[in-house]
Amino acid sequence: MNIIVDAMGGDNAPLAILQGAALAVREYGVTITAVGREETINALVKQHGIDMTGIAVVHAEDAIAMTEDATDVRKRKGSSLMVALDLLAKGGGEAFVSAGSTGAVLVGATIVAKRIKGIKRAALGTVIPGAEKPWMLIDIGANAECRPEQLVQFAAMGSAYMEKVMGVASPAVGLANNGAEETKGTSLQLGAYPLLQNSGLRFVGNVEGRDLMAGAADVVVCDGFSGNLILKTIEGVAKTFSGKLKEMFYASAKTKVAGLLVKSGLDGFKRSFDYKEYGGAPFLGIRHPVIKAHGSSDARAFKNAIRQAKQCAEKDVAGAIENWIATHKLAGSGDD
Amino acid sequence: MNIIVDAMGGDNAPLAILQGAALAVREYGVTITAVGREETINALVKQHGIDMTGIAVVHAEDAIAMTEDATDVRKRKGSSLMVALDLLAKGGGEAFVSAGSTGAVLVGATIVAKRIKGIKRAALGTVIPGAEKPWMLIDIGANAECRPEQLVQFAAMGSAYMEKVMGVASPAVGLANNGAEETKGTSLQLGAYPLLQNSGLRFVGNVEGRDLMAGAADVVVCDGFSGNLILKTIEGVAKTFSGKLKEMFYASAKTKVAGLLVKSGLDGFKRSFDYKEYGGAPFLGIRHPVIKAHGSSDARAFKNAIRQAKQCAEKDVAGAIENWIATHKLAGSGDD
Repeated sequence: MNIIVDAMGGDNAPLAILQGAALAVREYGVTITAVGREETINALVKQHGIDMTGIAVVHAEDAIAMTEDATDVRKRKGSSLMVALDLLAKGGGEAFVSAGSTGAVLVGATIVAKRIKGIKRAALGTVIPGAEKPWMLIDIGANAECRPEQLVQFAAMGSAYMEKVMGVASPAVGLANNGAEETKGTSLQLGAYPLLQNSGLRFVGNVEGRDLMAGAADVVVCDGFSGNLILKTIEGVAKTFSGKLKEMFYASAKTKVAGLLVKSGLDGFKRSFDYKEYGGAPFLGIRHPVIKAHGSSDARAFKNAIRQAKQCAEKDVAGAIENWIATHKLAGSGDD
Repeated sequence: MNIIVDAMGGDNAPLAILQGAALAVREYGVTITAVGREETINALVKQHGIDMTGIAVVHAEDAIAMTEDATDVRKRKGSSLMVALDLLAKGGGEAFVSAGSTGAVLVGATIVAKRIKGIKRAALGTVIPGAEKPWMLIDIGANAECRPEQLVQFAAMGSAYMEKVMGVASPAVGLANNGAEETKGTSLQLGAYPLLQNSGLRFVGNVEGRDLMAGAADVVVCDGFSGNLILKTIEGVAKTFSGKLKEMFYASAKTKVAGLLVKSGLDGFKRSFDYKEYGGAPFLGIRHPVIKAHGSSDARAFKNAIRQAKQCAEKDVAGAIENWIATHKLAGSGDD
């Protein structure tokens, strides 16, 4: 299996990307095609002694910066992102991973690698560590405004991912909402509720914000605006909580001793809130696996994103989505 | 100052309401009018030996249950909620507090106590403990769908509250959004952004989910659907975090010792995430102060909600909102 990576995308690119790729070759037995400026890459490989066994470099002169406007990607055919996606579309690898600008990756993947037939909008999902088990939130920002039938497709895509990659049999699907009753929400949720009931997916109803982490559903579906707010709120509260905890243990000699006594517990505690373990965010609904790794990915996080890409390809998540779409005619599915 | 309370509203009513009222009389020097079933109240007062000094009971035969549909309140003139609101509108007290059904309180207050002239929609705000300082989220659920000019009014109402009650000079107003740039969001945020810039309020731009707790703004404004998701997500993550922390300290004899060593720190930690300290959620935009106490309020939480009602009345939050509305002509403000 060959995984294509954007060597120039991300805050720590290309070094962390190349180091992550080298780790992935050793741990997962994949080969890697790293797309980026050859000269820059070769210099770094030499300087840091990176083992390039199993890694092929494909040159791309241009690179899209993290801060660039996503609408520009059409004009950037020579960028590492667009060269890599072109390779993906042409069968030069089984999956693609980038830690670059989210907007650019989403737009580029949609244009070049293309949506699965019948999918109205591709969506970005993410697996979040819950109190007892991980769960997927989808969409987390690819589509700020959505229509009800799109949410149903997101639910199907998220279910395919959780089943194939995370090994959850018959994943429970919930609709993020401001109340448990089916009369709750805006016109979007009111429209999506009956469609989800008739979707053939295991729909368990509305899920409120306070029940997300408790494991109310394996897949929680929402528009990208709400998903972004939910995800970042979780991150913000976890950060605030960790900061206060650190303060507490650093308060005095006595509390520092307490910190030592619970050290292994604290490490487990931190790990249980660590997103890096789950890799990146799968961009679902595209014909090939596309993983958006976190912009600040280090080598380990990028390596995990490569594992995730490999799993998506091995388990044929895109094929499962395509199959679901082909066998479930949705209201309004012909008008896009 | 006389505060009217719905003695029958809330999971622990009427006992916790009466006990909270008795505490408030002693601590804040207010008098209380408790509206509810006289017979039930008298029996409880006797049974629990509640000191009724400063508390007058006004009889109401009916009571609205926590689970009842809010649209029913018009037909429930004899309920403790509606009798209490009628008293409020007629000047029988300076403010009103209820721990009853949120929907019923919002609908009842809007119908009976009425909106401030020029206010298109009243909104429910709540003060949330942040990493460094408390901040207000508004709307948290009174209006699931909103128009841009409503968000500006929510911002003005939240600013008035934070300035008058929480003592924040010139509160910073942020717009909850899925990115920092002013081009982010749905049509609602795109429409609200320029209106907030020209509102005369101290608008500091968009605030992302991860920056809410860090104190990015004193008032964060959003539609009620998003606000409800944000608030409940914060609650859910805090609960998950607390649960994991407890597990960590209960793991072994060694970790239990650690728990004892950081006990005072842990107590402070818990307090810093304790909503009860801030009372209830002010329903802003109504002519009289209306505080929605948490449904599960105990005596202390209800007492704090009474303090908050007293502060709203003393500082004339409604007058400050009325004044702002009168001096700020908003686009679209005449069509409702």
